[in-house]
Amino acid sequence: MRYDLGKGASENWLIGEDSFAAHHQGKAEALLCQGNGYLGQRAALEEAYAGQTRDLLVAGTFDRFQDEVTELPNLPDLTNLELFLDGERFSMLPDRTRGYLRYLDLRTGALRRELLWTGAGGKRFRLVFERFVSLENEHLIGFRTEIIPLDGDGEIRAETGIDGRVTNTGASHFLEGDKRVLDQRTMRMVSQTAQDHVSCCLHAGLKVLIDGEEQAVSWLPLIERRYLALRSSCTVPREKRWTLEKLCAVTTGRDRECRGAEDPAAAAAENGRILLQAALRDGYNALFSPSASAWEKVWARQDILIRSDRAQDQLMVRFALYHLNIMAHKGDSRVGVSAKGLTGEGYKCHSFWDTETYLLPYYALTQPETARSLLEYRYLGLSGARKKAKENGYEGAMYPWETALPEDGEVTPLWGQADVVTGKALPILTGLIEQHITADIALAVHFYKTVTGDEAFMDRCGDEILLDTALFWASRVTRDLEKQAWVILDVIGPDEYKEHVNNNAYTNYLACENMRLALETMEALRKAGGETYRRLDKQFCFDRLAPRLRDVIQKIFLPGPDEDGIVPQFDGYRSLRAIDLTPYKQAGEIRTIYHHYNLAQMSGLQVHKQADTLALMVQLPDLFSGEVIKKCFEYYEARTLHDSSLSKSTHCVLAARLGETEQARRFFEGCGDIDMGPNMHTSDAGIHAASMGGIWQCAVYGFGGVAVQADGLHIRPRLPGTWHLLSFPLVWQGQPLQITISGADIHVSHQGDRPVGLNIAGQNVLLQPGDVYRASSVCGA
Amino acid sequence: MRYDLGKGASENWLIGEDSFAAHHQGKAEALLCQGNGYLGQRAALEEAYAGQTRDLLVAGTFDRFQDEVTELPNLPDLTNLELFLDGERFSMLPDRTRGYLRYLDLRTGALRRELLWTGAGGKRFRLVFERFVSLENEHLIGFRTEIIPLDGDGEIRAETGIDGRVTNTGASHFLEGDKRVLDQRTMRMVSQTAQDHVSCCLHAGLKVLIDGEEQAVSWLPLIERRYLALRSSCTVPREKRWTLEKLCAVTTGRDRECRGAEDPAAAAAENGRILLQAALRDGYNALFSPSASAWEKVWARQDILIRSDRAQDQLMVRFALYHLNIMAHKGDSRVGVSAKGLTGEGYKCHSFWDTETYLLPYYALTQPETARSLLEYRYLGLSGARKKAKENGYEGAMYPWETALPEDGEVTPLWGQADVVTGKALPILTGLIEQHITADIALAVHFYKTVTGDEAFMDRCGDEILLDTALFWASRVTRDLEKQAWVILDVIGPDEYKEHVNNNAYTNYLACENMRLALETMEALRKAGGETYRRLDKQFCFDRLAPRLRDVIQKIFLPGPDEDGIVPQFDGYRSLRAIDLTPYKQAGEIRTIYHHYNLAQMSGLQVHKQADTLALMVQLPDLFSGEVIKKCFEYYEARTLHDSSLSKSTHCVLAARLGETEQARRFFEGCGDIDMGPNMHTSDAGIHAASMGGIWQCAVYGFGGVAVQADGLHIRPRLPGTWHLLSFPLVWQGQPLQITISGADIHVSHQGDRPVGLNIAGQNVLLQPGDVYRASSVCGA
Repeated sequence: MRYDLGKGASENWLIGEDSFAAHHQGKAEALLCQGNGYLGQRAALEEAYAGQTRDLLVAGTFDRFQDEVTELPNLPDLTNLELFLDGERFSMLPDRTRGYLRYLDLRTGALRRELLWTGAGGKRFRLVFERFVSLENEHLIGFRTEIIPLDGDGEIRAETGIDGRVTNTGASHFLEGDKRVLDQRTMRMVSQTAQDHVSCCLHAGLKVLIDGEEQAVSWLPLIERRYLALRSSCTVPREKRWTLEKLCAVTTGRDRECRGAEDPAAAAAENGRILLQAALRDGYNALFSPSASAWEKVWARQDILIRSDRAQDQLMVRFALYHLNIMAHKGDSRVGVSAKGLTGEGYKCHSFWDTETYLLPYYALTQPETARSLLEYRYLGLSGARKKAKENGYEGAMYPWETALPEDGEVTPLWGQADVVTGKALPILTGLIEQHITADIALAVHFYKTVTGDEAFMDRCGDEILLDTALFWASRVTRDLEKQAWVILDVIGPDEYKEHVNNNAYTNYLACENMRLALETMEALRKAGGETYRRLDKQFCFDRLAPRLRDVIQKIFLPGPDEDGIVPQFDGYRSLRAIDLTPYKQAGEIRTIYHHYNLAQMSGLQVHKQADTLALMVQLPDLFSGEVIKKCFEYYEARTLHDSSLSKSTHCVLAARLGETEQARRFFEGCGDIDMGPNMHTSDAGIHAASMGGIWQCAVYGFGGVAVQADGLHIRPRLPGTWHLLSFPLVWQGQPLQITISGADIHVSHQGDRPVGLNIAGQNVLLQPGDVYRASSVCGA
Repeated sequence: MRYDLGKGASENWLIGEDSFAAHHQGKAEALLCQGNGYLGQRAALEEAYAGQTRDLLVAGTFDRFQDEVTELPNLPDLTNLELFLDGERFSMLPDRTRGYLRYLDLRTGALRRELLWTGAGGKRFRLVFERFVSLENEHLIGFRTEIIPLDGDGEIRAETGIDGRVTNTGASHFLEGDKRVLDQRTMRMVSQTAQDHVSCCLHAGLKVLIDGEEQAVSWLPLIERRYLALRSSCTVPREKRWTLEKLCAVTTGRDRECRGAEDPAAAAAENGRILLQAALRDGYNALFSPSASAWEKVWARQDILIRSDRAQDQLMVRFALYHLNIMAHKGDSRVGVSAKGLTGEGYKCHSFWDTETYLLPYYALTQPETARSLLEYRYLGLSGARKKAKENGYEGAMYPWETALPEDGEVTPLWGQADVVTGKALPILTGLIEQHITADIALAVHFYKTVTGDEAFMDRCGDEILLDTALFWASRVTRDLEKQAWVILDVIGPDEYKEHVNNNAYTNYLACENMRLALETMEALRKAGGETYRRLDKQFCFDRLAPRLRDVIQKIFLPGPDEDGIVPQFDGYRSLRAIDLTPYKQAGEIRTIYHHYNLAQMSGLQVHKQADTLALMVQLPDLFSGEVIKKCFEYYEARTLHDSSLSKSTHCVLAARLGETEQARRFFEGCGDIDMGPNMHTSDAGIHAASMGGIWQCAVYGFGGVAVQADGLHIRPRLPGTWHLLSFPLVWQGQPLQITISGADIHVSHQGDRPVGLNIAGQNVLLQPGDVYRASSVCGA
């Protein structure tokens, strides 16, 4: 990928490529994916190449394929366009293509491709492809293709349609459905998923212009199995511009607009029809313009400015913000954020702890209404969590490791990749024993409360989550007679290279904190009285739950630092065998350790997939002394392969807090490489959503020095030497702030309407609306 | 395609291509398809290109996908092989590939590709790919890839496996199933179809050799969703030959070997395991050799020799014989022949009247045991035919227009391509009203009896088919008061451009002949007495059925020639509007009339898809005078677009019988063009099976002048002027004959063990075993 394509006003806004390799399409498809939270459309090229993945994913349309776990079904493809120029099929053969450039303009959300193509007969054509997914109307997608024959008249044949011959890695979710050409230029495909009966409706309409003049075109309808298209040919005079506009509407029976409708499928079809009719009347430009304006508004509110010696730092952060804005369906608490956003089929578009631990800080501190809807999604998921607890013999709410529809409960698949030793598929145990997610969600609820002060949410949802998760932990602990303590046995911690461990530090400390917060909540509720108190007391019986939690909190085993100052990741960790990790750390790709060890073997080695005990130290920064944190950082980092996209941002934030800003900078750059780096296959199944939140955390938590503590918002900037300016917005207690760090100086401007208190570089400060607080020489450890 | 690739001993045996176009892959995939009647494997290239269809189809494994009609499911792909040479993915980019040649050797069944490839760095590699589908053991497939680095050592990385991410045009039939690496180099994927629970088991094992020496290779197992593969890398010294052998076994729970097994799926898996073990021990060459020998035996028995002025005539007939030998699963009466053989997914691999009318003459006259098993398949289909009759309100056996599993009955889909006028999918009416197939099957039974004298088959199956189909027709006719006759209303004849016609000549005459044959059968049975008589009399009650048939035969409306000598295709045909067909007749592709007219409109026009009344004149040659046949031929041919692959062979045979050998020759060449011609998309969904039988009929019926008549076998050769020699084998009454026509001479050599009577050019001849009958000046009209 190229990051230096933008010049002038476009500088640091364009990401793209200037060469095309058929076997590396996945990266650009995912990175340049377009969307709006409702849908995601991968940037597969219009014409077909082997190795493409033409995903069109709509949030919340989960369907099961046969006996497999539920996933977002890949909707029929709209991007397809087969072009014949002077009778020859257009394809980007290397010796025929010049001036190839493809880029996503983050400012406007437009994806553009331009090139010069020479036919077998030597005649040249200039081609420009452009497309957008509307941020103004989430159902709309527009495509525009322009072709100019440069050497004499050009014969152009175009075939484009709605292609239902797509699958999720070979699994087809949709029934054949109804395909129809509605008038001479509009196509409609309506289909249902086979098992969960999600009705999806795709409309596409076509317009042809020559030099801007709309043409009357005779389209030939083609209907085949799972395929519907229109085909037409025309001769375009030399140097005239042929333009094809394809305008599309995507609607489903699970759309917000259709909830409660008597026949949601019919409502979706009708909504699509009306949308497309208007779209065809207005045309590409008129639809693109409000979408670009919507993007402008996003950037006006959210842009983070960076001036550093490495040009791509700025673009990398904007790229993260772009994806953070297209992965969440704002205001829709029926859907979560998938581990790959809507940019690919990876992890079956399920939600993980990634949302709460890596994304929620960003949302809570910049667009709290999105954070709230994501936590409401977890509230809706309480029924599924209770079901899981019950099935596993526990009380309370045990959140699923992977979630699809909130009420479905656990949807983690049971089998994964090959075991290198046995050649069999590996069982996936995370759904059974990676349990810290329940505490992660509880802590995220508390975090959101601290950041926003949203008591209404706490009354309605948050307190109940805190209590029900605490109840789970109280039922989850077992008594260890030797330790004379409550222990948590047989779990997987964040480091998934260790299965079946006892007293994972991360899990135990977070579970304890979860229970502590619940206890605090019960005390506050009891003091306040009122409706929520009565409802929850009735549900949980505070008189029974409170002493039970108090007992567990008092006696739960919380591993402290040993004689070397190392907090052991779990019981017996330090006696595991250490091996030389250099070859794996230096490999150009992740998970190469799997080429030599299987999981059972790795459980006996001092090797980690990702931060585990260090993640604990980011989550609960006051647990250990700076000295212990420093020792643990050095100790564990040396043993960590960073094989998870969640790892480097944790290390960055912690390194920055330790004052190791140069090391932090390297981890920050490593975060960018997870998707934007030179390994061309890391993002084939979609970008790493958590990593986008991680990049934001590196910048804002790490270098910006932001920390949300019990007593409020702290800011202690720590810019690396090569960074000269960092300016970012925050929303604290509903009040928008702009924090600008320039060299060793900090400016905080209060753009809200109520006073707010902050702690800036150790100073408690009360800012009035309109205030700009300035301080010098605050940057540093 | 190129037909002139073979030189010397290979002359007229090789068909292939010397250039590669990614958008024209379907033709070679289908034409060069390999198989053995049990399975068909399309000739998709090993490395991936957009537009490939990697079909692996196993006869009789029919499964329904959701609410659609049943079809042969596409099995997981074995052909895949991803190669990286010096780190660059191998793909046949035009400017990197030299000396490309790919050909199927019809003599041995081997498919070979050779080319010289230059990497980005300028280093050259010679690559040779070879594969076969065993004709000796129908479950075995072998692949061999040889690579020689020519300029220095070469780094070769190979990944190959079992890829279940295939679909039938987007529909996935298989559950995820079980994927496993059994030892370090053997893979197994076992999966069931979702609805009909057909268990399919694929084994694949790998061997690597350098300059013929087997190497110990460390394979990395890769298991992903629906995908299982092994990957390995090695460095090959300059000019050494790296060879990868991939040996595969395909078994299913519907295999003959598993019928009656307690657990057919387990039996199939075990059979596959044993086969693969032996295959890996023996290696590619040892497996290929007996398969090539089996092909040699086929050719020794069946080859047709042609010497003509057009070189490809010879190859074209051998190509037809090749496909005729891989489309039928010999001796397996549970499966029919699909309209595309096993070379593609077209027509969902269903069986049509094509089998009886276009293929059965070939099988009956050259390999009668295959003809018998195909008719036994229809016998097993009686239950489905009876069900269809009942559902439609008729008696007897009404054969399905499309058949899959014999007992399933009608499986014609209900919707087809787009209506150009309304834009909606067209209803498919053939399953409802194209009914002549019932008579086609009855006449084929009688034909088989005449050719073979196989009374045992007639007793067991044939007579019952004749009676039950006749009963259907007796119940199908209705009384026309004006005509004072029995009529057959509302049908589709062979010409499918006319729906809802009355008294289609083809249908009425064949129905009448069907009933006449039944009457004859009842009389003969009654005369002979015996077990079959008692069984069938009990079933059909001859005393009631015989007079009923006699009445219908006497009074059925059989349209005769009108004042112009034209037999009307159906009631009112001659008053339809005539239009200028020149643009459609001259178009390079078929069905272009659909661009301007829809089916409802075509029903009002004098335009035909294919021979209809003329097909009647081939089936029942004694119905009309030569003069009427000649007039009809000229009249109807002018109105026929030959948009069906069934049309030209009928015209060829009729033209030859009329003495128009030059015209016949043009139709013969047109038959070859259906699959082998310049239109690159005619065979995308598979070759035209009926056309292969049609080519044989052109040669043997047309130019060879063979006709099976009530009084026996007639031979009256009619070579076109440019044909100098035609020699073909026949089996008549179990006696093998070789007929050689050379100029105006004929030699008939009797290679059997019992005397046979023939009529050669009007002379009745009795040949003794070992006789060679010679006659001169017999060729001509």
